[in-house]
Amino acid sequence: MDISNLRIGIVGATGAVGQVALNILESYHHPIEKIEAIASPKSHGKKIKYLDNYLTVKSFYNDILNSLDAIIISATSDVSKELAKIAKSRNVLVIDDGSTFRMDDTVPLVVPEVNGEDVEWHNGIISTPNCTTTPLVMVIDSLRQIQKINRVNVSTYQAVSGTGSLARKELIDQTKAMLSSQDYKVQIYPYPIGFNLLPHVDDFLTNGYTKEEMKMVNESKKILHDESISISTTCVRVPVEISHSESVQIEFSGEVEINDVVENLRTYSGIEVVDNITKNHYPTPLDSTDQDDVLVGRIRKDISINESRGISLWLSCDNLRKGASLNALQILNEVKIRSSKTFSKIK
Amino acid sequence: MDISNLRIGIVGATGAVGQVALNILESYHHPIEKIEAIASPKSHGKKIKYLDNYLTVKSFYNDILNSLDAIIISATSDVSKELAKIAKSRNVLVIDDGSTFRMDDTVPLVVPEVNGEDVEWHNGIISTPNCTTTPLVMVIDSLRQIQKINRVNVSTYQAVSGTGSLARKELIDQTKAMLSSQDYKVQIYPYPIGFNLLPHVDDFLTNGYTKEEMKMVNESKKILHDESISISTTCVRVPVEISHSESVQIEFSGEVEINDVVENLRTYSGIEVVDNITKNHYPTPLDSTDQDDVLVGRIRKDISINESRGISLWLSCDNLRKGASLNALQILNEVKIRSSKTFSKIK
Repeated sequence: MDISNLRIGIVGATGAVGQVALNILESYHHPIEKIEAIASPKSHGKKIKYLDNYLTVKSFYNDILNSLDAIIISATSDVSKELAKIAKSRNVLVIDDGSTFRMDDTVPLVVPEVNGEDVEWHNGIISTPNCTTTPLVMVIDSLRQIQKINRVNVSTYQAVSGTGSLARKELIDQTKAMLSSQDYKVQIYPYPIGFNLLPHVDDFLTNGYTKEEMKMVNESKKILHDESISISTTCVRVPVEISHSESVQIEFSGEVEINDVVENLRTYSGIEVVDNITKNHYPTPLDSTDQDDVLVGRIRKDISINESRGISLWLSCDNLRKGASLNALQILNEVKIRSSKTFSKIK
Repeated sequence: MDISNLRIGIVGATGAVGQVALNILESYHHPIEKIEAIASPKSHGKKIKYLDNYLTVKSFYNDILNSLDAIIISATSDVSKELAKIAKSRNVLVIDDGSTFRMDDTVPLVVPEVNGEDVEWHNGIISTPNCTTTPLVMVIDSLRQIQKINRVNVSTYQAVSGTGSLARKELIDQTKAMLSSQDYKVQIYPYPIGFNLLPHVDDFLTNGYTKEEMKMVNESKKILHDESISISTTCVRVPVEISHSESVQIEFSGEVEINDVVENLRTYSGIEVVDNITKNHYPTPLDSTDQDDVLVGRIRKDISINESRGISLWLSCDNLRKGASLNALQILNEVKIRSSKTFSKIK
């Protein structure tokens, strides 16, 4: 990834995803003068350590866009809508991390490893998928090269940081209180998440699924350009801070060899196979935290499907990193590679 | 359940399952003089509060069986083997909670709601299933009455108490240490379980599954008397103290109505449907802890299966209670109901 010449605004710079975006830019030694840390007015003036210096958080004003090539928005839906409109009018590319534009037919929804070419038809806005969708479509894309995939079933194990920094605080606060038999508040989720599980991520829809579950279904089809693939999902919040995990069952149209499955995953950019059961090697959320790659393991034949047409696997992926900020930055890189003209104002 | 006339030995009385067994007996006001609390020599003499009195823990000696009609063993495989042999020779019924005898063709494996009639062919030993199997077969048994079930896929979310009291201590100790950035020990599991997930329950087998995963598959078929049902499982340890949860997908041979599914579950003994998404009602491990019933919710069509032949649901079940000790006591009740002669020594 080389986006060092791009001037990037991080909207939501003090939030969970924004902070990780800045960490990643820092690790690439992205020049501080080519970054704007943008947040809500209450964070205006806050200093964020960056390399040997400090970024000063600014609240948004229209002319801040004059010094930017692109903004990455990780904020509320209202902020996304408002800022995207202004940025578009000023020819500043918007990479949106929210759900606002994802299913908009005029907006590409991109995981560079899967459908990088879709950035080419952007019209000022590109969306990055939901943090559970991204690792799933990478696995599916890797494996559909062996054999057509008919059906995918997923149960998720999602970290609280997917909800945001306040949810992370709630998990910590509740856990501390539970360990010392104190009272605790239940604010972010409807029930305690400390030492508990909630089969409930985002709002419920009339079909009995949650929005999160349907995001995984619909976003996957859009990214994969495959409406024929059948997907069902169960999304569960777990008392983990960072990294989402998924138990995935894939049903192919014909027989597959496990060796081919492992080999395709192993050679897929952005996936690391961690799978040696004799040594107890398998992905865990703690191990995948701060990792760029999606960790995939427990790869085996699905013994409930005849004729070796099914496999089961387990993955963990840093939801703030490849699940959000890293993917957004990689989209910028993809745009740059595919069309230098896209950033009309790059000096 | 009425087993008040039975003299019962709880082997492993100081362990996680044994303690819950005593709690249940206490809630039924089972006479203290008809209970022996049996544990390893290191617990000999320990007092356990029981109603307004105390049970004195005894280490096992052969003649303790003289005063008992049945023993419930929740201990190591070696203890199960040794004690079962002695008890059998003295005509004391053994209910074993371990995996030692479960797949033995001469030993019934029983969930009373599903296959209570199997107690009738016991030969001195009856096994109670693995704590993840029990709630699953109850759900399957309830739903196969609507339509033949072809395939079941399960991903589990298993509490640490399934491993035992030491694992529960390890979760607590690690969590405390993590919250205060202290070092912690990793002894019971290969990796930390505090704020983490391990897709690894029991040992790995050469087919890529764990023993736990294959227990669910094989025990379910035995209990259901159905070798044709295809089952696959992924078992995951989660940082929860008590109650196992399961994300379950069921594929029927023909179309099913969700209303029928809900109705069958609702009327099945031992299942409570907790499913009102407009009110955020769904099972959680915290809510199912100390409950006799298996809580089932998130009941909906599996949208990845055509022609309404599939459903998805979520369940939580107290792994120490219905998953172990309650089921063992209910087996005793079943034996008593079906054949008073079985307890030859009942006065």
